[in-house]
Amino acid sequence: MTTLYGYFRSSAAYRVRIALNLKGLDYDQAPVNLVKGEQRGDANLARNAQGLVPVLETSEGTQLTQSLAICEYLDEIYPEPPLLPADAEGRARVRALAQLVACEIHPLNNLKVLKYLVGELGVGDEAKLGWYRHWIAEGFQALEAKLTAEAGSGKFCHGDSPGLADICLVPQVFNAERFECDLSPYPRIRGIAANCRALPAFAKAAPEAQPDAG
Amino acid sequence: MTTLYGYFRSSAAYRVRIALNLKGLDYDQAPVNLVKGEQRGDANLARNAQGLVPVLETSEGTQLTQSLAICEYLDEIYPEPPLLPADAEGRARVRALAQLVACEIHPLNNLKVLKYLVGELGVGDEAKLGWYRHWIAEGFQALEAKLTAEAGSGKFCHGDSPGLADICLVPQVFNAERFECDLSPYPRIRGIAANCRALPAFAKAAPEAQPDAG
Repeated sequence: MTTLYGYFRSSAAYRVRIALNLKGLDYDQAPVNLVKGEQRGDANLARNAQGLVPVLETSEGTQLTQSLAICEYLDEIYPEPPLLPADAEGRARVRALAQLVACEIHPLNNLKVLKYLVGELGVGDEAKLGWYRHWIAEGFQALEAKLTAEAGSGKFCHGDSPGLADICLVPQVFNAERFECDLSPYPRIRGIAANCRALPAFAKAAPEAQPDAG
Repeated sequence: MTTLYGYFRSSAAYRVRIALNLKGLDYDQAPVNLVKGEQRGDANLARNAQGLVPVLETSEGTQLTQSLAICEYLDEIYPEPPLLPADAEGRARVRALAQLVACEIHPLNNLKVLKYLVGELGVGDEAKLGWYRHWIAEGFQALEAKLTAEAGSGKFCHGDSPGLADICLVPQVFNAERFECDLSPYPRIRGIAANCRALPAFAKAAPEAQPDAG
């Protein structure tokens, strides 16, 4: 059986849950409580020296890390339905949209980064919230511009079926809503997120639907 | 002709230069001066709404963004020599190592982030340097542990030929050296970086070898 070590509110685990659901795969969930610091416990460090979630353990016992690498692995082993388009330029576009979220927005708003801001740099609550919202606004402005200008966009980030970029977009929208970011300037992002959330694969992956949600 | 819009000291552009060189491809370089703010000028924004480098313009005029997406594109269009191993688990491992650098270390030490720390949060020079070194140390500890423990490691991050993980590792080592981080705890990382730098594809891609180096 495939096991996902994750946390209901982790964006990266949320991405992998969507990918598993889109592929129609069964999996066990093993929660790692990030608020209690379980990610830095020996059991999780043995799975991932980075002390992060998610880790996907395959039925053969291989432990995979990094959410985008896991999603691409799933796409290679279970090709249907595809998470990437068939043409190289389309794949480059979808990967770039996914990485806009995963390499430019999300890393700056990680729990460990917010803790460093407060603990090491003495940043107050208001400035911390400002930091959080700043990187979402900067990234979403660029993402909205790309989704609006580029011909590849459709009902989803690329065409009319969900893929790797949507898998990154929806958890980032969830975070933005949680921190009450103003999403009114991003109608295209909101529209795509709504189309995604209407699908069972995305709805079942939502943080509030997880066994460890509290 | 393929054109790379980049900057000699940009890690992300450095990655793409290594990939182009490993594939033996000819390309023009069009420098975008990040210190002068040219990345936010109209010409660069038209290429990339994110206002970042690199952008790779193919001979057909398609403009590609995000360094890892560009490297995977090059690997698909020009399969030899491969940047990823042939097996899905190996590919997942190499992508995870690459993303450890590209999603966990590098985004936190970007120029725009350092500017925000100083300008918006009033962080001083010493604390800024502490931030920079903290994220490299945290990431390199995990990377060193993985490279040491995992059977896939060899002369390079994965086996005995250079690939996507090495393409990310070497520019990150360059940054660490530039900011005088202590690399003595990471013998495996230093050894792999030395093996890479001995190859012409990496040496030709080094910041100091670029036309806009100043």
